[in-house]
Order: sequence, then structure tokens, then C-alpha cells
Amino acid sequence: MHFADRLLAACRQKDNSLCAGIDPRWEQLPLEIRRRHAGATLDAMASAFEEFSLRVLDIVAPLVPIVKPQSAFFEACGPAGMSAQQRVLAKARSLGLVTILDNKRGDIASTAEAYADAALAGTPFDGSRHPVWAADALTVNPYLGRDAVEPFLDSARRCNGGVFVLVRTSNKGAKQFQDLPSGSKPVYQHVAEAVGAWASENLGASGFGDVGAVVGATHPAELALVRQWIPHVLFLVPGYGAQGGSAADTAAGFRADGTGAIINSSRGLTACFKPEDLDWEQAIERATKATIEDLRQGTPMKALKR
Amino acid sequence: MHFADRLLAACRQKDNSLCAGIDPRWEQLPLEIRRRHAGATLDAMASAFEEFSLRVLDIVAPLVPIVKPQSAFFEACGPAGMSAQQRVLAKARSLGLVTILDNKRGDIASTAEAYADAALAGTPFDGSRHPVWAADALTVNPYLGRDAVEPFLDSARRCNGGVFVLVRTSNKGAKQFQDLPSGSKPVYQHVAEAVGAWASENLGASGFGDVGAVVGATHPAELALVRQWIPHVLFLVPGYGAQGGSAADTAAGFRADGTGAIINSSRGLTACFKPEDLDWEQAIERATKATIEDLRQGTPMKALKR
Repeated sequence: MHFADRLLAACRQKDNSLCAGIDPRWEQLPLEIRRRHAGATLDAMASAFEEFSLRVLDIVAPLVPIVKPQSAFFEACGPAGMSAQQRVLAKARSLGLVTILDNKRGDIASTAEAYADAALAGTPFDGSRHPVWAADALTVNPYLGRDAVEPFLDSARRCNGGVFVLVRTSNKGAKQFQDLPSGSKPVYQHVAEAVGAWASENLGASGFGDVGAVVGATHPAELALVRQWIPHVLFLVPGYGAQGGSAADTAAGFRADGTGAIINSSRGLTACFKPEDLDWEQAIERATKATIEDLRQGTPMKALKR
Repeated sequence: MHFADRLLAACRQKDNSLCAGIDPRWEQLPLEIRRRHAGATLDAMASAFEEFSLRVLDIVAPLVPIVKPQSAFFEACGPAGMSAQQRVLAKARSLGLVTILDNKRGDIASTAEAYADAALAGTPFDGSRHPVWAADALTVNPYLGRDAVEPFLDSARRCNGGVFVLVRTSNKGAKQFQDLPSGSKPVYQHVAEAVGAWASENLGASGFGDVGAVVGATHPAELALVRQWIPHVLFLVPGYGAQGGSAADTAAGFRADGTGAIINSSRGLTACFKPEDLDWEQAIERATKATIEDLRQGTPMKALKR
């Protein structure tokens, strides 16, 4: 099934479009887990990240349609962390979750192809494809231009996967280059329009393309503009919660029927407790349910029906 | 020692500023090596990439000052590839080579910090720094803006490392966003000027900063412009050789004294033979020497003296 249709079906099934960001940080892990992975090596850190992430998946899988592991935190543990990332993605898939690997890749030609196939369709070798991270989608940086993005689209289209291109990021410094005016438009509008064109190449039955846009909730005015410019593009919206965006700030990312925006929350879900709390799993469950409710109250997401 | 001074000392010692790109691709590996790593698994591919890369390092270490492993090809093999990448970087360091990990990272806040520390200063854990890739420098994508680049500068400055920021990439599609005019300048000039400002924060005795710019040899006119705009910035110049750039095309990246530009060649050095050739190591050695000679003839690099 087309990526956008699959994503939308998963959202309708769970009656929300919350994405649980999996961003393990040692100092935020439950003490219980930290103690079990002692030794102060990166291998110990990786196994703690893995245990925590797998338990988070069990908690959120009945509630949310999508998870987004942040690759940087797994990479920080070295090769053992990359093995952990691989197993976390595999478990997420086995739980029926749609997976977005947030690794913000971008390179040219055969190099981009190597990153793309690792994330999506699998590395081609000896006549077959060998899965590496095997995510449903990844995030991609557009600075290098069309021929640097196309290998990601090619790989996604081999496996009904998706690509989320950074358009307007959620950080304070985003405007330095993304908002530079060029002609009558800021740079990020040029990027958004390119994303719109790529998305149009392969629309699903839902009317959305398989190329999405990352647009931060911390810039609600820009989010509303991008929604107008490219109505057929799915948004991955970071910046809700710990980064300061409210449900109302994300509202403009949705279409009136409740589709079109995936709202990510990472720390708001998985760092919502004190490390010494023993009931951290219940805390994550409560925070996830409360976030869904907050989004239902404050955005068109409530119009999503199965 | 400051990164730029260390880099320059290495260039003077070898009397050239050629960077050997380590981009292992299965179909370009010597048959001899492919046969030894049979089994058609990604682990076999990773061990073949590692053997090839380590042997390349032995060949080029007496000749060139710098090597640049391309992370995408190691990542394509999964966790085993990341272990191979780690060992390739460790051997390069032990041979006295300056190492640039070409992984084009870019993210915000603590996420950028995780990537940066993995590449450079080491992941902080339990009061000490744990080396991950432990390169001397990495490549960084600027699209997310200042606060996304700064964690990389911070990590580099903890370990006398460096950062090469993408300014004008070597691919055909580079112009799509990088050349958008904004005010009287293209976007990549805004990026170049930001790189110039970051570099000025920490100049070495050589007068160069610890923040460099990636500027492709495939755009010689742009290369000459960027050299004028930011004379105190080191350039990492891809695009020479297999991508079509000539020595003359790279010349404008240098200052008159032969400093300022590092010229990368990947396929021109390490894919200069047929897989069935038995004397592939001699072929790489000859190609490396011929490339250095070509650059000495065609660029100000000949002015480099010990």
C-alpha cells in the first residue's frame, strides 16, 4: 500500500496522529534501567537505550500509530548503539507501528543511494536487498538539491516507503538560511514547492504524496503558510511540548478533515518522569493519552475517524 | 595543536594537500578481496570494506596527509559496517593521517551534540568522554542554521578538531537551493559568510579557522568567489577526478602560497583498477602519485614547502 495511505490508515485505526519520538538520553532513563546496565561503557549505554526503547514501544504501541527513533542518540553509543537502533525499529514494525527514522541524511548520487537503501529498501547485494534499518520513512536534508533527494525517493518507492524533507525546522536558528528572501519567497518556500512537486509524482488514494515535509510547531504562522502552499503533502511536525509548541500551534498543519499532520512528541512522552520514579511506565502511558487528548481538543485531529 | 595548524603541518610534511577519499563499493573491490569475504551477507560486505580500506590506508599513508572515509558506504552494511568505519578511522589515526569523517550530519540542540561528540570529542558518559568515531573533523549540513552548527563547533573545540560545512556542493543539482539569489547574494554566499564568521572565532597560528567549507571543484567560478569572500577558511574540495573537475578547476581554491585547499579524490585513487587486476595496490599507489603530480602542476599547491 502507498506510504501515505498506510500512514493514514494507521492514524485512523488509532484515531490520532501522534508520533512518539524515541530519543533516549542516559540522564533521563529510569534509575531502575540505568542500574541494570552498569559499567559506564558505550555498550552498556546502548543496551540501556535498547531496553528503555523496547519498553516504551510496548507502552505506546496500543495508543499511537507512529514512532520516530532519533538516530543521533543511538549513534552516540557507537556500533552497539546502531545494533540497538536496528532492533528497536524491528520491534516497532512487529508491533504494527509506522516507523520514521529521524536521521536527517543528505548526500549526492551513489552516496545518497547508500543512505537511502540502508534506511528504506535495503542494501542491494548479490542480486537481493538486505535490510539495514528497514524503516518506513526517514528524514532528509534538502540543501544539496534535487539530485541529492531523488535517490531517497527511488529507494522509498521500491518499498512503499516515505521521505520527510526538512522545510522549516523547529529550532530558533532555523530562520538564518531557511527564511532568506529569494524573489518574493523565503528559501523554505522554494524547498516546500520542490517537496510539493516530488510529492505529486506519486500520490496515494488519500490524495497525499509519499514525500512529506518537516515543519516545526514552534513557527505556527509558517506552518499555516506551508499547509496552504502544498495541501497534498503530509507534515511531520516537531516542536510540540518540550520545545514549546502547543496543540493550537500545530492546528494549522492539519486539513479540516483531521488529516495531513503527524505531531511528534519526544521528551513530553518519554522523559515525563523523574529517573527515580518506579511507576515510569504508567507515567508514559498517562502522558501519551493526555497528549492525544490535548491534540484532539486543540486541533482538527478530532475529525479523524476510522 | 589547532586543527588548521595541524592540517597544514601534515600537508607540508607530505608536500601536498591531497585527501584520499575512502568510499568502498562492493562492485569496485578487487576480486581477490571479494572472494575472501564470501557469503553475500552485509557482515561479509563490511569485512571486505574493512580489509580494502585498511590496505588502502597502508598504501596512501606515506603519500597523502588526509583521508576521508565516506560514512554512507559503511552504514550501508549496518552495525558491522559502523564497526568497520571505527577501525578504519583508528588505523588512519595510528598512521598519522588527519581524518575527516564525511557523514554530512545536521540536527538541532542536544541531537546535534550527540552526532558531534560521536564524530569528534567522544560521547560524555559517567564523567568522561568515550570515543566513538574519533575523527579529526566531520562534514556538516548548514540548512538548520547557527544553533544547529554550534554544537559541532563546541565538540570540535574540545578536541582541537575541525568542521567542514557544506557551502557549494559538487553535484549538478546543487544550484537548486544553494544558488537562489537573496538580496545581492546567492544563498551559498550567505552560508559562506556564516562559515567565515564561525571560523574567525578560533583562528590558528596559520591564520586559518577550525571551521572549513566544502566547495566543489565542479564549479570553478564559484570556488574562486568563495576563496575571495572568506580567505581565512580552509576548503575541502570534492569533485576532482571521477566527478569531472580538473586540477585547473581546483586551482582557485588555493591561496598563492599553496595553502587553503584540500583536494579530495575518491574513485580516482581507489577505483582506478579493474576488480580482476592483481596489482591493484600498485595501481592505487601510482594513481595517488600521479594525482599529486597533477595537482602540483596545475595548482598553487606546488608552493607548499615543509
